[in-house]
Amino acid sequence: MPKLVDHQRRRAAIADAALDVIAGGGLDAAGLREVARRSDVTTGAITHYFADKAALLDAAYEAAMARVIARQAEVGRADPALLPQALASFLPTDDEAIREWRVWLAFSARAAVEPRLRERHGAHYTNILNDFAAALAAGGLPSGRAAIAADALVAVLDGVAIRMLLEPGGWPAERIEAILAAVAAPLLEDGR
Amino acid sequence: MPKLVDHQRRRAAIADAALDVIAGGGLDAAGLREVARRSDVTTGAITHYFADKAALLDAAYEAAMARVIARQAEVGRADPALLPQALASFLPTDDEAIREWRVWLAFSARAAVEPRLRERHGAHYTNILNDFAAALAAGGLPSGRAAIAADALVAVLDGVAIRMLLEPGGWPAERIEAILAAVAAPLLEDGR
Repeated sequence: MPKLVDHQRRRAAIADAALDVIAGGGLDAAGLREVARRSDVTTGAITHYFADKAALLDAAYEAAMARVIARQAEVGRADPALLPQALASFLPTDDEAIREWRVWLAFSARAAVEPRLRERHGAHYTNILNDFAAALAAGGLPSGRAAIAADALVAVLDGVAIRMLLEPGGWPAERIEAILAAVAAPLLEDGR
Repeated sequence: MPKLVDHQRRRAAIADAALDVIAGGGLDAAGLREVARRSDVTTGAITHYFADKAALLDAAYEAAMARVIARQAEVGRADPALLPQALASFLPTDDEAIREWRVWLAFSARAAVEPRLRERHGAHYTNILNDFAAALAAGGLPSGRAAIAADALVAVLDGVAIRMLLEPGGWPAERIEAILAAVAAPLLEDGR
């Protein structure tokens, strides 16, 4: 294996272990020792790949957001008639997505009191909203309405996602789809 | 001052100081020493009012939620035609509300990894949704639609609130009201 690829792969594996640790116990629980244990390397090895704990946690956050955004890109490509179902697939409905959304929630809370994280968060949201609005505009919605619809749909998704994380078992698919359909349908019809 | 009232008043003042500390620096920052400094009492005095740090933080959370819920009750009494504006008044638009929503976000993140907090959170949300749905049903919405509308409106509010906390300065009143009007109006009209 070329050395660079090996380095990147190991680095990604450690970031993924950090993602696991944060998802399981929150940011407070995410120390170098816990991540080392989870990724089966020494804490010394971690510092070979990450300058410090903040760099490691940042990498975990970026890994989680990259996956959330990749799923969002699929939603943007969905048939507008199937948008409620596509939006639902964005939510924490399986273990993998639950893990990513838990990391999102942990970092959102931290970002409220850490300006450096707020900037990262803001940049991701700007991209997410622009992509969403562009997809809705491409589907025929006037651009002003598309921006409002993107804002509203992202807000609903974030709001429902938190509830799903905090009320596991309380969110059968019908409940999720009823909300998304009730919100999405008028947003997409209006003004067409 | 009767002794019981004095006790309750001091206890509430200390919980309020804890609310300030959490809003300013998150749950990690909220130690007995910081709260003692903020409320101008000794840490020993705090332990006279609260069994331990967890009890103090719980009291701060309950104080924040009590205020959020009190504002929600006002929203429930609003003229349906003015609902978007009433919903906006629920959001972190002033320093007081920002403080309460920051505490909500800190505890939401902690609740994702702490079952004990999840139960408290779930109980509050059950009440909030029931009250909301009852107010919408009293306004003429069939009860099935009212439950979905309450779910959707609470999700939008939570989703927008997070964005407002993490993107201070990015949420002028027009943006907030455009989203709330676009989501709320069809939810309330449909099925009437």
